[in-house]
Amino acid sequence: MQNIKQQWVDYIHSLQNNICAALEEADGKATFVEDEWARPEGGGGKTRVIANGNVFEKGGVNTSAVSGVVTDAMRAQLKLPNEFATQNLSWFACGLSLVLHPMNPFVPTVHCNYRMFELYNETGDVIDRWFGGGTDLTPYYLMDEDAVHFHQTYKDVCDGFDSSFYPSFKKHCDDYFINYHRNNERRGIGGIFYDYQRPSETKDVNFWMNFGMACGDAFTKAYIPIVNARKTIPYTDAHKHWQEIRRGRYTEFNLVHDRGTLFGLKTNGRIESILMSLPPTVRFEYNYQPVPGSEEDKLLQACLHTREWLA
Amino acid sequence: MQNIKQQWVDYIHSLQNNICAALEEADGKATFVEDEWARPEGGGGKTRVIANGNVFEKGGVNTSAVSGVVTDAMRAQLKLPNEFATQNLSWFACGLSLVLHPMNPFVPTVHCNYRMFELYNETGDVIDRWFGGGTDLTPYYLMDEDAVHFHQTYKDVCDGFDSSFYPSFKKHCDDYFINYHRNNERRGIGGIFYDYQRPSETKDVNFWMNFGMACGDAFTKAYIPIVNARKTIPYTDAHKHWQEIRRGRYTEFNLVHDRGTLFGLKTNGRIESILMSLPPTVRFEYNYQPVPGSEEDKLLQACLHTREWLA
Repeated sequence: MQNIKQQWVDYIHSLQNNICAALEEADGKATFVEDEWARPEGGGGKTRVIANGNVFEKGGVNTSAVSGVVTDAMRAQLKLPNEFATQNLSWFACGLSLVLHPMNPFVPTVHCNYRMFELYNETGDVIDRWFGGGTDLTPYYLMDEDAVHFHQTYKDVCDGFDSSFYPSFKKHCDDYFINYHRNNERRGIGGIFYDYQRPSETKDVNFWMNFGMACGDAFTKAYIPIVNARKTIPYTDAHKHWQEIRRGRYTEFNLVHDRGTLFGLKTNGRIESILMSLPPTVRFEYNYQPVPGSEEDKLLQACLHTREWLA
Repeated sequence: MQNIKQQWVDYIHSLQNNICAALEEADGKATFVEDEWARPEGGGGKTRVIANGNVFEKGGVNTSAVSGVVTDAMRAQLKLPNEFATQNLSWFACGLSLVLHPMNPFVPTVHCNYRMFELYNETGDVIDRWFGGGTDLTPYYLMDEDAVHFHQTYKDVCDGFDSSFYPSFKKHCDDYFINYHRNNERRGIGGIFYDYQRPSETKDVNFWMNFGMACGDAFTKAYIPIVNARKTIPYTDAHKHWQEIRRGRYTEFNLVHDRGTLFGLKTNGRIESILMSLPPTVRFEYNYQPVPGSEEDKLLQACLHTREWLA
């Protein structure tokens, strides 16, 4: 089974290359700069950031392949079965994580993450393995056709594997990216999200790996056409102002609620790679409310009330 | 003892008036706007905000006097003794909380909070009461004399009550406002902080109330002279850029670590009053590092290594 791990690691790195190339082409000016880092406990990553482009004001496309021994904190976090309580376990995780913050408020922010996690016993056998991932869109101005295109792209991928996936993973995404402290306002208009998917009799490890790869490959199809359609729309200071207000909500979600961010901050993760997700410029204004019925309010309402974009 | 509560509430409201008047005078243009709010469970508050002034880009001076029944979540949070586990308790809290974010990067941000908490049994007797508070300074450019003036003002207040207070409360402040995920970088250069101070044989309720009042009264003496000395220093876009980077750290502390903020977010507090503390404009840049030896680096080093300003 060693080749499963290698196959996934190789895929993640090729996905990083492909996505960076596609984003650089869409940007037309800025290029990614890579920071390769090592983790003292094992493994490392490649953080690739882009800044001050024609399209992307700030973004990162990061990969990591890290490993270590299972600590008590991880045991609790992972809710490991009691049978493993006395064993010296080790783990491996590999994934890609990206966030892009465009300059133009008509181009949505996007986030995606695809990962595999393996757990080993003392003799190095894989005793557990799961896959997780998702892609979600955060527009500042709602264009229904962009939301439909984005969701349709992932529904098509999902339907090729199991027709129950899209409804389930779409709901999981809507239920995850919530600013609970803001009257359950969503961060954006969602996408798909799945986690802790373990190989089973009917869906083996190759099924889940192929599903993760198909989702990863779909990213450029889902996002780049939206970028190209919107990147030249003229915008005013007022549009930018609203974008920065909404980026405040993005910041609030990532720092207050996002499990991955908080886990990284509390476990000595590489801080600059984790907080790469935060927007470049942000505004927090006291009790800012968009004018009812305005384009800004239309976006806010879509964040307050989830929709079935493909109904 | 009812008059203790009324005395404190009256003081907090007069302190709010006095501080707002002093800040408006220092600003010379903007005035505070008040939102009075009620809490469905009991009590309410007065949120006063200032924005886009000559000096203050954003700020709030808030008071609240709120009450309710002790829930299981509060029992856990307050670590109440077991003897109270089966009783129907109620609580009351009253305090002032302020944060000011100046426009000019040479004027420091300041935060202060002074509060009293009371706990009652089923017949309404006060069974526990404690005081807490503090004031801390967050400069963007370090002026040693400002740090000394600020700390000296509070040391003078402390010394009038107990000579052990300043060293102890200064350390408590240094140990609280820490971005643990940033290599233990402090939010600023501290001040004083104390909490859970209960009346005792030697320090009765009037002692602690008078101490809180003396600290509250010292705020304008500690802060306004710094504002007036620095508010007209010319600054460049580069200074503003650095201020916004540091405001990012302020945002990280408040959303990731600050107990008061997180408690408010998780217990249905008035969200706009809680998040009033966030800076008006913020920047998050990947791996931003000031030039070693620069004025920006000098401030950063003061946040990484606490100092005895009055030694």
